[in-house]
Amino acid sequence: SDEVKECENYFGLTLLDRKSAKRTDSKWLSEKQTHPTTVYILFSNLSPLVTLSGGIEGSQQPGVKLCRLCHKDVQQYINQSEESTLIFLGVELQLHMNVLDACNRRGLQDEEDGLVTWFALSIDSASAEKFKQNHEDCYFLYPPMPELLRLPEKEAGVVAQARSVLAWHSRYRFCPTCGSATRIEEGGYKKTCLKEGCPSLQGVHNTSYPRVDPVVIMQVIHPDGNHCLLGRQKRFPPGMFTCLAGFIEPGETIEDAVRREVEEEAGVKVGHVQYVSCQPWPMPSSLMIGCLAVAVSTEIEVDKNEIEDARWFTREQVVEVLIKGNQHSFFVPASQAIAHQLIKHWIGMNANL
Amino acid sequence: SDEVKECENYFGLTLLDRKSAKRTDSKWLSEKQTHPTTVYILFSNLSPLVTLSGGIEGSQQPGVKLCRLCHKDVQQYINQSEESTLIFLGVELQLHMNVLDACNRRGLQDEEDGLVTWFALSIDSASAEKFKQNHEDCYFLYPPMPELLRLPEKEAGVVAQARSVLAWHSRYRFCPTCGSATRIEEGGYKKTCLKEGCPSLQGVHNTSYPRVDPVVIMQVIHPDGNHCLLGRQKRFPPGMFTCLAGFIEPGETIEDAVRREVEEEAGVKVGHVQYVSCQPWPMPSSLMIGCLAVAVSTEIEVDKNEIEDARWFTREQVVEVLIKGNQHSFFVPASQAIAHQLIKHWIGMNANL
Ligand SMILES: Nc1ncnc2c1ncn2[C@@H]1O[C@H](COP(=O)(O)O)[C@@H](O)[C@H]1O
Ligand SMILES: Nc1ncnc2c1ncn2[C@@H]1O[C@H](COP(=O)(O)O)[C@@H](O)[C@H]1O
Repeated sequence: SDEVKECENYFGLTLLDRKSAKRTDSKWLSEKQTHPTTVYILFSNLSPLVTLSGGIEGSQQPGVKLCRLCHKDVQQYINQSEESTLIFLGVELQLHMNVLDACNRRGLQDEEDGLVTWFALSIDSASAEKFKQNHEDCYFLYPPMPELLRLPEKEAGVVAQARSVLAWHSRYRFCPTCGSATRIEEGGYKKTCLKEGCPSLQGVHNTSYPRVDPVVIMQVIHPDGNHCLLGRQKRFPPGMFTCLAGFIEPGETIEDAVRREVEEEAGVKVGHVQYVSCQPWPMPSSLMIGCLAVAVSTEIEVDKNEIEDARWFTREQVVEVLIKGNQHSFFVPASQAIAHQLIKHWIGMNANL
Repeated sequence: SDEVKECENYFGLTLLDRKSAKRTDSKWLSEKQTHPTTVYILFSNLSPLVTLSGGIEGSQQPGVKLCRLCHKDVQQYINQSEESTLIFLGVELQLHMNVLDACNRRGLQDEEDGLVTWFALSIDSASAEKFKQNHEDCYFLYPPMPELLRLPEKEAGVVAQARSVLAWHSRYRFCPTCGSATRIEEGGYKKTCLKEGCPSLQGVHNTSYPRVDPVVIMQVIHPDGNHCLLGRQKRFPPGMFTCLAGFIEPGETIEDAVRREVEEEAGVKVGHVQYVSCQPWPMPSSLMIGCLAVAVSTEIEVDKNEIEDARWFTREQVVEVLIKGNQHSFFVPASQAIAHQLIKHWIGMNANL
């Protein structure tokens, strides 16, 4: 259904066209930086600046929305300190709208393209304090989880993109090939070693580009088709169970990573694996690849180093929790998480609800 | 069919169980290092040591196979220089065989597990020269492409794993968070900063783990269902066309990356996207995620910065090239490449061959 489809895209939906070809157009970028229609979103310590919005239905907490700032709000912080980082995020999608029309309506000059451009600006803690003093209704959303889940879906996608790139800059300050300092280029999407003669400057290397870590997350189905395997880590809130997951290793396919992780964590052997959907997860920059996995063995042997518990749950138990909301025996992650969607997808398959 | 399935797994098939839990068992690892049944494969400059094997059917070039060495062949090179790097690859899969039986048959002692363990050892150029002088029938396979495609499928998987991890060590020698030197740990799968107080030592960060770059590669189908979109880069051999491809960016889903790349490179808009299969590609460490993508526009506008040409090819043209082998008008990559398999998959879909 459309509803499921939309939920699956939390952190994956976006308001923006990334317009990656513009990343190397420094004249265009610098004109857009000061343009009055340009939108800035602000980050401090990888947390976005938000303000309260209306309540979210079914949630105890009020929702939040991004503070959309303009150039004059932030200009004093751009290039202000070493920690200040500017990322070009893209331009607003112009669905069903003729760009030229838009220009005319707004009375823009001929050479302007009328594209509403977004940037993310990360500032240091001192600047963040100062900013908040002048904008009392705004605050930085922290801790990242579960607070980021309070954003509207489309803004979550923009935050996922910005936060992942900013996290890369914050952890990858130095050239991993030679240890020297680096310079940020191409609207924030490239990083170049400053040392002449560094091998990273010859040819194209992934050291210069943001990292994305592919992760498999899988709904494991019992051979009888009527149970699924859910596990929990020690650090989870009491009672929470979810799909098993793990990082894909070098030289491994998605399908093999699913089989390896399920066997390692729970001792269960998996046969057929089927891709369902995926979701970016900006903690700091994972791509969660969601699969259905059919078990060919049933005995569970938990690896206590990786997880605390793993159990087979019946379809009825999962329906109770997920559809009927009876969460006294156990519960699963919120609907924004792909695990929730994978579990729901399985319930939807040949279910008699 | 099984044949297609097997080909799709070039670089993805493997002889080994990675046994990742053993990576932290340094006693076990060091016992295995000197064990007489342990297999070493040797690398120099990311190229594996091979020897000639029988010819590959339908190929002008003879096939090659890995030189499987034992501890005494390589012991003088382990820890010999800073560049010497040892990676634990896993243990041979014991399909249909009782491990205890195997131990008994080989007369091993009780405390031994009978697992045949594989390591990859990378040595510096001077050591490589010296080694070759004593092993005249062996040589290092170079350049990586297309030479690696001459390996038997199952060995290609082992090489993909080893080469990706070794490439990570060669380009990520220094801590990207603080620029200090690092130490290799956990059988080669972890890298720890040596500077006390470095932020990378608090918590878990991807700076410590090998990088895997997810890439989308897509067979784009014309809205009429009877044409597909193939493109070529300047650096390709003349006449070669293949599926479009590109790196997944932070905060992006597989499906959105497909849509963005096709629009960027060829100006064609894509609607529905469907995952087909994936393949590790160890140049240096990509995961190629193969999809079918249905175009919703047909006009091509090539971005000359990214590709040289892109065209719609009819089903008949592709059948001529792929099945009948008439390659005078154009040709596509060899069967070991996922692009070949994606194209073949499309031909196989409701085809009248
Ligand atoms: N992780 C990455 N590794 C290498 N190149 C990347 C990466 N991410 C983005 N790129 C860009 O992709 C281009 C190479 O793409 P390709 O033509 O597929 O080899 C580079 O010139 C970069 O601009
Ligand atoms: N790219 C990566 N980033 C973080 N942890 C990784 C990565 N690759 C492998 N790991 C391992 O996965 C563990 C964390 O997994 P998780 O429990 O899914 O957060 C770490 O302790 C590492 O051993």
